[in-house]
Amino acid sequence: MKQVEHIGIAVKDLETSIALYTKLLGVKPYKKEEVASEGVMTVFFDAGNTKIELLGATREDSPIAKFIEKRGEGIHHIAFAVDNIRNKIAEKTAHGFELINSEPKNGADNKLIAFFHPKSTGNVLVEICEEKG
Amino acid sequence: MKQVEHIGIAVKDLETSIALYTKLLGVKPYKKEEVASEGVMTVFFDAGNTKIELLGATREDSPIAKFIEKRGEGIHHIAFAVDNIRNKIAEKTAHGFELINSEPKNGADNKLIAFFHPKSTGNVLVEICEEKG
Repeated sequence: MKQVEHIGIAVKDLETSIALYTKLLGVKPYKKEEVASEGVMTVFFDAGNTKIELLGATREDSPIAKFIEKRGEGIHHIAFAVDNIRNKIAEKTAHGFELINSEPKNGADNKLIAFFHPKSTGNVLVEICEEKG
Repeated sequence: MKQVEHIGIAVKDLETSIALYTKLLGVKPYKKEEVASEGVMTVFFDAGNTKIELLGATREDSPIAKFIEKRGEGIHHIAFAVDNIRNKIAEKTAHGFELINSEPKNGADNKLIAFFHPKSTGNVLVEICEEKG
């Protein structure tokens, strides 16, 4: 893993949370982007060395809606930047880590993304992401 | 907030988790340090731009033991580096954020630390930390 690309936080109401995190972090978000395929609206804050990504559900069957229903608002995932997502998937599955989606999919912020299943990563949802060329 | 100083992850068994995160992150931990006052053993990994801190309970009444009993293993907190923790506490409480400990206390890694109550920070446990001089 190269570095922590962002920390994803699931929120119930984006506008309320944008106001909250703007006060907490001391900066306004610099980007808002919908990932329609995932049923999420994403909002990004620059936290200096990494990003904070707020995730709001855009429909009832969104993974974010399901997460909040089960666990409440809070930290949803840690995303690590990688140079080559397919190579990294091969490397990590060889080490016993399991993917939720073994085929990379399009995420926010011009990225190819894949998630490891939390049961293989100590109950932490881990994303890996590659900047698309 | 200057930057994300580390991401804290609560784990049941440190040795098992050290092996897991070494495989996941591709690096070995560089430091292990007990914070006896908090009942935790900490283990640090360099994640490139920030640190991953594993937190294991050293006694039954440790906050980490209670966290795991309630929520299971997983991401415990996000820590932000600040230049002056007392000034930052004053600034953030004026904005309505509530501290768990309003008086900074000694944390791992030569830091003065304070935690915001998750009820004031969208159900995310947020630490601020200042490097001790």
